[in-house]
Amino acid sequence: MYSRTMNHFVTICSSMSRTPLNSLKSDEAGPKQGPTFQDGQRRVDYVLTYHIQKPQSFRRKTSHFGDYRILRSLRRSLSMMRGRDTPPPKEDPEVAAHKHRLDYHEDDKRFRQTEFEDNLREMGLELEKDEGNKIPGIGFLKIHAPWNVLCREAEFMKLKMPTKKVCDVVERINLFIRKATAPLHPKVEPNRAQNMLFYPLLSCQILYDEWASYSVFYKYQPIGLIRKYFGEKIGLYFAWLGVYTQMLIPAAIVGAIVFLYGCATVDNDIPSMEICDPRNNITMCPLCDRACSYWKLKTACGTARASHLFDNPATVFFSIFMALWAAMFMEHWKRRQMRLNYIWDLTGFEEEEIDTTACLLLYVCSYFSLDYVLITLFQEKKVKLTCTDRAPAYMTGLFTMLIMVGVTFAVVFGVILYRISIKAALHMSSNPTARTNIRATVKGTAAVINLVIIIIMDEVYGALARWLTLLEVPKTDKSFEERLIIKTFVLKFANAFSPIVYLAFFRGRMVGRPGDYVYVIGSYRMEECAHAGCLMELCIQLCITMLGKQLIQNNLFEIGIPKIKKLIRRRKSDMDSQQQEDYNMTLQRHEKDHFLGPFVGLSPEYMEMIIQFGMVTLFVASFPLAPLFALLNNIIEIRLDAKKFVTEVRRPIAARAKDIGIWYNLLRGLSKVAVIVNAFVISFTSDFIPRLVYQYMYSPDGSMHGFVNHTLSYFNVSDFQPGTAPLQPMHLGYEVQICRYKDYRETPWSNTPYDLSKEFWAILACRLAFVVVFQNVVMLMSDFVDWLIPDIPKDISLQIHKEKILMVELFMKEEEGKKLLRDSHANQSPLQPRSRPASHTPSNC
Amino acid sequence: MYSRTMNHFVTICSSMSRTPLNSLKSDEAGPKQGPTFQDGQRRVDYVLTYHIQKPQSFRRKTSHFGDYRILRSLRRSLSMMRGRDTPPPKEDPEVAAHKHRLDYHEDDKRFRQTEFEDNLREMGLELEKDEGNKIPGIGFLKIHAPWNVLCREAEFMKLKMPTKKVCDVVERINLFIRKATAPLHPKVEPNRAQNMLFYPLLSCQILYDEWASYSVFYKYQPIGLIRKYFGEKIGLYFAWLGVYTQMLIPAAIVGAIVFLYGCATVDNDIPSMEICDPRNNITMCPLCDRACSYWKLKTACGTARASHLFDNPATVFFSIFMALWAAMFMEHWKRRQMRLNYIWDLTGFEEEEIDTTACLLLYVCSYFSLDYVLITLFQEKKVKLTCTDRAPAYMTGLFTMLIMVGVTFAVVFGVILYRISIKAALHMSSNPTARTNIRATVKGTAAVINLVIIIIMDEVYGALARWLTLLEVPKTDKSFEERLIIKTFVLKFANAFSPIVYLAFFRGRMVGRPGDYVYVIGSYRMEECAHAGCLMELCIQLCITMLGKQLIQNNLFEIGIPKIKKLIRRRKSDMDSQQQEDYNMTLQRHEKDHFLGPFVGLSPEYMEMIIQFGMVTLFVASFPLAPLFALLNNIIEIRLDAKKFVTEVRRPIAARAKDIGIWYNLLRGLSKVAVIVNAFVISFTSDFIPRLVYQYMYSPDGSMHGFVNHTLSYFNVSDFQPGTAPLQPMHLGYEVQICRYKDYRETPWSNTPYDLSKEFWAILACRLAFVVVFQNVVMLMSDFVDWLIPDIPKDISLQIHKEKILMVELFMKEEEGKKLLRDSHANQSPLQPRSRPASHTPSNC
Repeated sequence: MYSRTMNHFVTICSSMSRTPLNSLKSDEAGPKQGPTFQDGQRRVDYVLTYHIQKPQSFRRKTSHFGDYRILRSLRRSLSMMRGRDTPPPKEDPEVAAHKHRLDYHEDDKRFRQTEFEDNLREMGLELEKDEGNKIPGIGFLKIHAPWNVLCREAEFMKLKMPTKKVCDVVERINLFIRKATAPLHPKVEPNRAQNMLFYPLLSCQILYDEWASYSVFYKYQPIGLIRKYFGEKIGLYFAWLGVYTQMLIPAAIVGAIVFLYGCATVDNDIPSMEICDPRNNITMCPLCDRACSYWKLKTACGTARASHLFDNPATVFFSIFMALWAAMFMEHWKRRQMRLNYIWDLTGFEEEEIDTTACLLLYVCSYFSLDYVLITLFQEKKVKLTCTDRAPAYMTGLFTMLIMVGVTFAVVFGVILYRISIKAALHMSSNPTARTNIRATVKGTAAVINLVIIIIMDEVYGALARWLTLLEVPKTDKSFEERLIIKTFVLKFANAFSPIVYLAFFRGRMVGRPGDYVYVIGSYRMEECAHAGCLMELCIQLCITMLGKQLIQNNLFEIGIPKIKKLIRRRKSDMDSQQQEDYNMTLQRHEKDHFLGPFVGLSPEYMEMIIQFGMVTLFVASFPLAPLFALLNNIIEIRLDAKKFVTEVRRPIAARAKDIGIWYNLLRGLSKVAVIVNAFVISFTSDFIPRLVYQYMYSPDGSMHGFVNHTLSYFNVSDFQPGTAPLQPMHLGYEVQICRYKDYRETPWSNTPYDLSKEFWAILACRLAFVVVFQNVVMLMSDFVDWLIPDIPKDISLQIHKEKILMVELFMKEEEGKKLLRDSHANQSPLQPRSRPASHTPSNC
Repeated sequence: MYSRTMNHFVTICSSMSRTPLNSLKSDEAGPKQGPTFQDGQRRVDYVLTYHIQKPQSFRRKTSHFGDYRILRSLRRSLSMMRGRDTPPPKEDPEVAAHKHRLDYHEDDKRFRQTEFEDNLREMGLELEKDEGNKIPGIGFLKIHAPWNVLCREAEFMKLKMPTKKVCDVVERINLFIRKATAPLHPKVEPNRAQNMLFYPLLSCQILYDEWASYSVFYKYQPIGLIRKYFGEKIGLYFAWLGVYTQMLIPAAIVGAIVFLYGCATVDNDIPSMEICDPRNNITMCPLCDRACSYWKLKTACGTARASHLFDNPATVFFSIFMALWAAMFMEHWKRRQMRLNYIWDLTGFEEEEIDTTACLLLYVCSYFSLDYVLITLFQEKKVKLTCTDRAPAYMTGLFTMLIMVGVTFAVVFGVILYRISIKAALHMSSNPTARTNIRATVKGTAAVINLVIIIIMDEVYGALARWLTLLEVPKTDKSFEERLIIKTFVLKFANAFSPIVYLAFFRGRMVGRPGDYVYVIGSYRMEECAHAGCLMELCIQLCITMLGKQLIQNNLFEIGIPKIKKLIRRRKSDMDSQQQEDYNMTLQRHEKDHFLGPFVGLSPEYMEMIIQFGMVTLFVASFPLAPLFALLNNIIEIRLDAKKFVTEVRRPIAARAKDIGIWYNLLRGLSKVAVIVNAFVISFTSDFIPRLVYQYMYSPDGSMHGFVNHTLSYFNVSDFQPGTAPLQPMHLGYEVQICRYKDYRETPWSNTPYDLSKEFWAILACRLAFVVVFQNVVMLMSDFVDWLIPDIPKDISLQIHKEKILMVELFMKEEEGKKLLRDSHANQSPLQPRSRPASHTPSNC
C-alpha cells in the first residue's frame, strides 16, 4: 500500500506538541508567527512536501524540525489496522528519487496521493494543504496530530513516568560535586530542559548558545536536551563522542609524558651517542646500486636521535597502558549507555526492523532498467528473495570488495615504486642540494601522495559500498545499515591503514643483503629503513595521515562543501542578495527549512571517529602523541558537528536507539586487534628487543656500549654482484674493503658467509616470545578490567531494584484490599470451613 | 524477624497442588493414602520438621518432595508486608546447625516458633501439627496453601500462558523429524508431562523408568519433566549435561579417527624407524649420575613408536578442531538455554538475591565463640559490614588460597622427588628384573600416587573453600555461591592440573646438559623425558587421571558413600531388618523421606564436569582419546546422577534459574585458555615443529631421514664433572669416547663447546611463531563461529516477535473500541470543532 504512495515524499517541519492551545494563542496571531493551520488554532505537527509540476525530480526531503517517531508509529499502527498487507518500506532518498520511473501515469499518482491522505485521516490525523505558495512547484501538506492520537502512540512507546527516589546523603554529595564542577556544565536548567520538548525554537536557541559554539569547548554537552531535540540516536552519538573525548584526556597526558621522557633521555641514549660519535668511523654499504656510494654511519645521527623520542622503553609501558585504556573506555561507555538507557526510559525498548526488500528491489530493478524482471516479480508476488536470487549480488559484492582491497594494496605498492624510483633519480642527479635533501623530499612527497590518495579513495569507497549493499537487497533497514557500515569500514580501513601497515611490518624486511638484493619490477631494489629502524618513518606517516586527514576532512568536507552547496542552491534561484533577503522575509519557517541541506545520517561521523580510534590504539606504540592529536581534533569535532546539526542541515528525523549498534562491535574488534598489532610494533618495528637481548646476552659489561657495532654485519665489497658496485667507490676519500650493513648475518670469513647468524635467530625467538607474553598478559589484564567494572552502574541497578520493590508494594497493597474483601465474604459464606481473624493493618511503607 | 525463628528448620514434603480437592477424594480415605490434613480434605503442600526434645541437634532437612518456590516467595511477601525490616537469611544447613548456641532459653525458642507459625498463618497458609508420631523427637508442621494464595504467588512469578502459533510446514517437518528419532525420545507424553505437576508420585515413577535407568542411555532426557519435578536449576544442569554429552559425540569420533591415523602410520614414521634401526648404532649419555651407564638409543624404540600414536600431524588438526568445537559448544548451549528460557517462560524472570550478611555473621561469630563481638554488633545494629570489617577475612582468604596452591605445587614437587629418588635407588639395585622394569614401575606408582593425592586434596580443598567463603560473609546468597565456586574451582583446578602442567611444560626442560646438570636438594638430577618427548608420559598421566578420577569418584563417592551412610543411619536406629520393614510400613511418606540423604547442591556435579571439560579441551593435543573417555563417562554420569536424584536423596527444593550462572563463565574461560595451552603443547611438548624445521631447513633431501641424528648433540666423556661419570663405563661392552644427548648444542670441538646452537634458536623462533599464528588464527576462527551462530535461535526470536504482534493487535482492538466510543461522544459534544466519519470496521486479523 505504502510502497505505491511513498513517492510523494515529505518534509517534516515541527515537533510534537501537547501544550494546551490557549497558552500559545497570545503570540500566534498571523500566519507568520507560529506554525498553525489557517484557523490559527490547530498546531502544525508535521509538514509533507510534494512536487506539483515536475514529477521527474521528486525527492524526499527531511527537515530541520521534525519528529520521526510519530510518523513512524502512525504508519505502523495504520499498517496494523489494515492487516499488515505490505509493511512500510525503507525511506531512502535515492530509492525515492528513482522510483518515479515506475510512475507511468499522472492520474495513477494523483489517485495514490489521495489514498495516502485518506489513510492519514483514517488514523485520526487532521490535514491541511498549502499549494499556492512562494516556492513554485512545491506543495505542502500540513498535519495536525490531536491529543488522543498522541496519547495512543505514547502508550505504544511506553513513555512511563520515572519513579525515582534518591537518598539524602547521595543527593548532598551529588550537589557538592555539581557545585564544584558547575563551570563545566552547560547553562541548561534541568526543569526547563524537561519541558523544552514543547518549544522547539527555544531549545534550538539554547543548543546554539550552550553547545554548538567553540567558546564552550571545555563544558559537558547538554545530552538530555540534545536527545530531546534530535532523538536518541543522535543523542547517543554525541554522548559517545563525549565519553571518547573525555577518555582521551588521560591518554593524551600519559602520551605526552612518554614523549617528553623520550626528549629528556635522548642525550643519555648510548646507541644514538655511538652513532653520532665521530670516533666510531663506520663505513656503511651503499643504499642503492651503482649511483649511491659508501656512507658514514654518523650521517644518520639526526634520525637516530629523533627515533629515540618514539622508540624508548616508556613506549612499551604506554602500549600496555593504551590496551587497558581501550578496555576501560569500552566498559565506561557500556556503563554510560546503560545510564542513558535508564534516564531515557529505554530499558524495555526493542528496536523494530522494517522490511525493505520490496522497496530496494524496486529501486535496483529500475536502476538497471530491468522492467521485465520487475513485472515478473510482481506478477508472481515474489518479493521474498531466495538464496539463488541473492547469490549473484553476494558474489559481486565479495569480488568487488576483494578487488578494491587489492586496488588499495596496489596503490600502496605504487607509492613504494614512486619512492624507489624518485630516490634513484635524485641520487643520479648532479645537483648537490637535491642530493642532500633526498630523504626529506622523498618522505614528504610520498606521505602527501598517500594522503591525497587516501582521501580520494575514501569517497570512492563510500559510494561503492552503498552500491554493493543496495545490490544485496538486505531484508530490513537495520540489516541494510549494518551491511553498509561493514563494507564501508573494511574498505576505508584498508585504505587508511595499508600504507601504515606496510611501513610498520614490511618495509626493510624484504631487502635482501648486499650482494644479494631483492629486486622488484626489473631493477628497483626494495626500500631500506633508516638506520634506527622504520619507526621514525611510521611516525611521520601517522602524523601526516592523522593531521592531514582531520584537517582536510573537517575543513573541506564538513565545513567547506556544505557552504558551497548552499551557495550553489542560492545561485540557482537567480536572485541577487537583496532580493534574496526580501524573499526570505516572506517565507514561513517550513519554507525556509526547505533550503537547508539534508541530513545524511550518522555513519560518516562515526566512521571518521572509528578510523581515528584505530590510529590511536593500533599504532600507539610507534606514536605516543596520537591520543593528544585525537583529543585536540575531537574538541573541535564535537562543536563542529553540533554547529552542523543545529544550523547547517534540516533537523534530522528523530530516531530511537538503545545503543550505538554495530559501531560498538567494531570498536571492540579494534581494541582486540590493537593488542597484537602493538605487540608486533614493539617487538619487530622498534629496537626494544634487540637492545634488551644485547644487554643481557651479548654485552661484555652489561651496558649498551657496543650495541651499534653488534647490529651491523660485515660485507666484503668484492662480493658485489656484477654491475651493482658503486660507480664512485672513492666517494669517502679512501678505498673501502669491508662495508657494514644492518642485519644479523655471518661474516664473509665464516664457513657459511652471509647466512643468518645465531644472533638473528636468538633475537627472533625473543621477539616472538615477547609477542606471546605481551599479547596474553595484556589480554588477561583487559579481561580483568572488563570483569572488574560492572556493566550496569551500581546506582542504576539499585534504582531499578527500588522501582521493582515499589511495584511489589503497590501490588501487595492491592492484594491486601482483595484479601479483606474475601475475608468479609468468607465470614458470610457457609461453604468456607472456618474463618481466620483479619489480624493485621495495612503496612505503613 | 526470621533470623530468630529460622532454627525450627524444615522438611518440605509435598509439591504444590491446585487440583480440585474432590477429584482426589476417591483415593484419599485414610491417613496413609494421601498427604492430607486430618480432615482428609486439605492437601499437605509442605511439611516442616523440628526437633522436640534435643535442641542441640537442630538441623534443617531438605526433602525429597518439595517446592522451594512457594516458601521462598511466601517469605518474601511476608517480609514485604512487614516492612522489610530483616530480609530472610540464607538457609544453610551448617549455619542452622550452629545457631543453637544462641538459644539460651527454651521459652524464648517456644515463643519464636509460635511467632513464626503466626507469620505463616498471616500469609493465608493453613497449618496442622503432628507431634505424637512414630519418629521420636521429631515434630512435623504440615502446611496447606489455599488456592487464592497460590494465585497471588503465581502473579508474582508471572506464570503466563504460552501464546504460540506454529506454521504448518514447520509443524510437518518437525513431525517427520520426531517420527524418525522416535526411539531416541523418552516415553513421556507431552500432555501428560504438562499436568504431571499435580501428581508428583506418578512423574517420579516416569522419571525412574524413562530417565534414571542405564537401559535408556541412548535416549534424550525428558528435560521438561525433570524441570517440572526438580525445578529449573536442576533441569538446566541436566540439559547442560545432555548438550555437553551430545557435543562430545563428534569430538570422540574425530579423536578416535586421529588416534587410528596415528596407529596406521606408525610403521611409516621415519624418526621412529631410525631409532629402532639397529644399524644406527648411537650411544647415549647416562640418564643418572654414577649408577647409570651409557645406553643404546634403539632401546627407546618402543616409546618412540608409542609416542607417534599421539604425536603426529593429525594432532595439530585435532587441536584446531577442538578449539572450534569448544566455541561451537558454548554457542550451542547459549541457544539451548535461550530455547529453554522461552519454553519455561523465564524470559522476563530476574533472579533475586537474598541478603545473608546477618545470618552468616551470627554463624561465624558463634563458631569462634566471639559472643562479645556479636553482642557489640547487635547492640550497635551494625549488620552492614564495612571494608575494614571485611579486610581480615579477605586477607585470610587470599593467603590461604596462595598457601594451598603452594601446597599443591609442593605435592607435585614431592612426587617428582619420589620419582627421582626411586629411580636412582632402583638403578643402584642389583636385581636385574627391577632394573628392566624401572621406567614402568616409576611411572605407574608416581601416577597412582598423584591420583590418590589429587582425590584426597580435592575433599580437603572443598571444605577449605567453604570455610573461607563463610569467613568472608558475602552479602547475598548468590554472591556466597559464586565466591564458593570460584575458590573451589581455583583449588581443585590447580590440584588436578598441576602434575599435568609440570609434565607438559617443565619436565625435561630444566635438566641442564651432560657435564653441567641441574641438581635439586643436594644431588638429585632433574628428570629427563624419554627420547621421543614427554608427550607419552603426559598421555599416561592424563589417561590415569581421567579414568581413575572418574571411576573412583563416581563409584566410591557418588554410589558407595551414600549407600554406606544410609546403612549407618539404619544401624543407628537399633532394629533388625524385619523390625525395620514392619516399621517402614507404618510410616507415612514424609516420615519415610526423612531417612533419605540430604541434597547437597549441584556444585559438586558441575565441578566434576568442568574439570573434565578442562581435560578434554586443555590438553587435547596430547591425548586425542580424551573426548571419547569423557563421552563414555558422561553417558554413565547422566543416569547415575538421575538415579541419585530420584531415589537416593530427598527431593531437592526446586529453585528457579535462568542460566547456569558462573559455570558458563568458567567454561568460557577454559575454552579461551585451551587455545594457548594447546598451542604450547603442540609447539613445545610435541616434536611437530622440530620435525618441520628439519624437513624444510636442514634436511639434505627434503625428507625426514637424519632427523634423529640432528636432534642429538655430542658430548665428550672427558668433560664429566668429577664424581658424576658412570661407575660401569664398559657396560655396553666397548669404551665410549663421545656420547649423545637430546639437545641442540654446539659440538665439543667448536669454538664455544656445549653452547646453545643456531639450530636451537631457529627452532625456538619457529616454535614461538607457531604459537603466535596458532593462537591468533584459532581465536579469530572461534570469534567467527561465535559471530556466525546467532545467540537466539531463529524460530524462538520469530515466536517472540509474533507474540509481540499479537499483543499489539489486542491493544489495537481495544483502541478501536475506545475510539468508537469517543467518536459517538464527540458527535454529541459542542466543544469538538468537527466530527470525522467512523469509516472502518475492526480489522479481521
